Amino acid sequence: MNIQKPSFIDLDSSATTPVSPGVLESMIPYFREDYGNPSSPYPLGERAKEAVSQAREKLAWLLSAQSREILFTSGGTESNQTAVRGALSARPGKKEILISSIEHSSILGLAPFLEKEGYKVTLLPVNPCGRIEPETVRNALSENTALVSVMWVNNETGAIQPIEEIVADAHKAGALVHTDAVAATGKVPIDLSKVRVDSLSMSSHKIYGPKGIGALFLRKGETFSSLMPGSQERKRRGGTENVPGIVGLGYAAVEAAEFLQNSIAKITLLRDHLEESLMDYFPFIRRNGPKEPSFRAPHITNLGFLGIAAEKLLMDLVREGIYVSMGSACSSGSIDPSHVLTAMGQTREEALSALRFSLGRSTTARDIDRTTTILSGILKEKRRAS
Amino acid sequence: MNIQKPSFIDLDSSATTPVSPGVLESMIPYFREDYGNPSSPYPLGERAKEAVSQAREKLAWLLSAQSREILFTSGGTESNQTAVRGALSARPGKKEILISSIEHSSILGLAPFLEKEGYKVTLLPVNPCGRIEPETVRNALSENTALVSVMWVNNETGAIQPIEEIVADAHKAGALVHTDAVAATGKVPIDLSKVRVDSLSMSSHKIYGPKGIGALFLRKGETFSSLMPGSQERKRRGGTENVPGIVGLGYAAVEAAEFLQNSIAKITLLRDHLEESLMDYFPFIRRNGPKEPSFRAPHITNLGFLGIAAEKLLMDLVREGIYVSMGSACSSGSIDPSHVLTAMGQTREEALSALRFSLGRSTTARDIDRTTTILSGILKEKRRAS
Repeated sequence: MNIQKPSFIDLDSSATTPVSPGVLESMIPYFREDYGNPSSPYPLGERAKEAVSQAREKLAWLLSAQSREILFTSGGTESNQTAVRGALSARPGKKEILISSIEHSSILGLAPFLEKEGYKVTLLPVNPCGRIEPETVRNALSENTALVSVMWVNNETGAIQPIEEIVADAHKAGALVHTDAVAATGKVPIDLSKVRVDSLSMSSHKIYGPKGIGALFLRKGETFSSLMPGSQERKRRGGTENVPGIVGLGYAAVEAAEFLQNSIAKITLLRDHLEESLMDYFPFIRRNGPKEPSFRAPHITNLGFLGIAAEKLLMDLVREGIYVSMGSACSSGSIDPSHVLTAMGQTREEALSALRFSLGRSTTARDIDRTTTILSGILKEKRRAS
Repeated sequence: MNIQKPSFIDLDSSATTPVSPGVLESMIPYFREDYGNPSSPYPLGERAKEAVSQAREKLAWLLSAQSREILFTSGGTESNQTAVRGALSARPGKKEILISSIEHSSILGLAPFLEKEGYKVTLLPVNPCGRIEPETVRNALSENTALVSVMWVNNETGAIQPIEEIVADAHKAGALVHTDAVAATGKVPIDLSKVRVDSLSMSSHKIYGPKGIGALFLRKGETFSSLMPGSQERKRRGGTENVPGIVGLGYAAVEAAEFLQNSIAKITLLRDHLEESLMDYFPFIRRNGPKEPSFRAPHITNLGFLGIAAEKLLMDLVREGIYVSMGSACSSGSIDPSHVLTAMGQTREEALSALRFSLGRSTTARDIDRTTTILSGILKEKRRAS
């Protein structure tokens, strides 16, 4: 018996992750002994500055970027919004923006503000598998397009997007490309020396780093306007650096690279086992997302339980200590269907029957077996009742 | 001998502070066991949500505000910039902004951007003691003034500003008032039920909380536009909450209130002792800031060493393990004089002869004695040499 194993099964690692023991250990000294402000001109400050610099190199290494291209932020949302705002001010004459219809709310939520400011925002449709067709982007591009924003991996379905093709087309048209890689980092290989996006967002707390810290890759040479002006981060972001958070993110980046190398095969196997155990037995379960394995991030499966309200299913699982999520956020009693699944052509009812299972580093075969056993019991019970 | 005492003397607590043992302890569970995302609809998430809610109440209590008026941010800079941006969009017809000439760079640095957007920014002068005269604000106000931004305590001189009078005049003219209370929180009493500012910024890492987290008080009833739109923080800020950071800030708020109650007299005494030990002996030392004790925050003294380059003095002190700061930030070899001291009417040379000493919770009488002894030795040496 592993005493560190919690009393629940967390199949919602896309919502957040705990910090790993190594990450926490790396952060502790910077809370207490080495608590300096990196701007202070004495050893206490210099050690903090050096720690930030080393973390930046680790993150750059994970992404195959240069360390000067890495800007630390307070998380994925700030990274995304800084990137979009920065790109628009870097292309002042251009007034059109292409955003995929399956972006995270931190990008989609900007659309009404941008429209109010005179931008034309076009939401790019996806195919029924939840992928953007490169032709869709190609046809939407014009010489007036300032920015294309498409996430690397969709956080609800795990669908990998054709970023490389999109970059080629967008750059030909003179547009910048931003990609939200919050769900991709540490799950799929990212090589920014090859995939020439202009900016990329990542978040620490999805890769076993602390909450409240993230990073934005900004390709060298691009002009940039700051969301939060100030002298830190090479004058690209104001505010005293979150040194422990940055150190933790650096450590998490190294661990994420190791995980990517060593454990992706295992997690893919577990995910497939979860899908097969359920789908072989219950023909009404539908997998939402691409079929082609190379189009799928390894840690996510999104399953539609046709005819069943996912909200109730989720609560039944929670009662058994199994944590998953709906594609949608629940707020004050009312439930909206996932914008990702509806963009894939699903009806409201179909979308409201879906659950996302996202596996993490600690997921075991036993967790998956227990989940399929419990879930099968619940589903049989529901069928009997109806 | 106290083994926890570090090998240096930190008289730069206004730059940053370590997290207190209690703060660190309060945060740890939220990194590992209780790592949930407050938006997740299961116990792990609910515990995180509850922790955020409790921290919010603690901070509201420190400021005599309501917990719904507290918005967590990534720090003082984000709080300040969110407040200014929010106020301007709450007063869309008004195009004038009054900013004190001694504000922190996170506010002053916005001025060129705001001017480019068509705002008229007026920098309010201060008197030679570094205080704004209420008449100055009164005379500058017009019906076109959207916002007055004056810090509660200046971070370089410790001068307490006449916020209450400014609020009365500004509100009479229909303008909003923002105050940067980063240097004031936990050092002077703040009662927002009495001082009716519309917004107030504070930072965690100046009060022995973690870096990367801060708060913005936004008075209930004021309209607000978000710097970083999203669904969290009552739709006032996007991004997964930095739960451990927020919990740490909540704990720090309670400790700050205790410190304010119990230790301000002691720290004032130590500060006065530092000043007297030096000024009685070296008549060329001038204190920059108000003379009147009730106009001074207890933890800061800014001393001008006329005829001596503070940069060299600082480095001499650093070599002896005594950490202080200049009013100004050093960058890439060139040194700008403090904008605060020049706003007070000092020449460039005068301003470049000043050091800021800021005392903290761990400052002892022994630290002060050692500092005055070392500094006296250095000063005598310099006089002999010149």
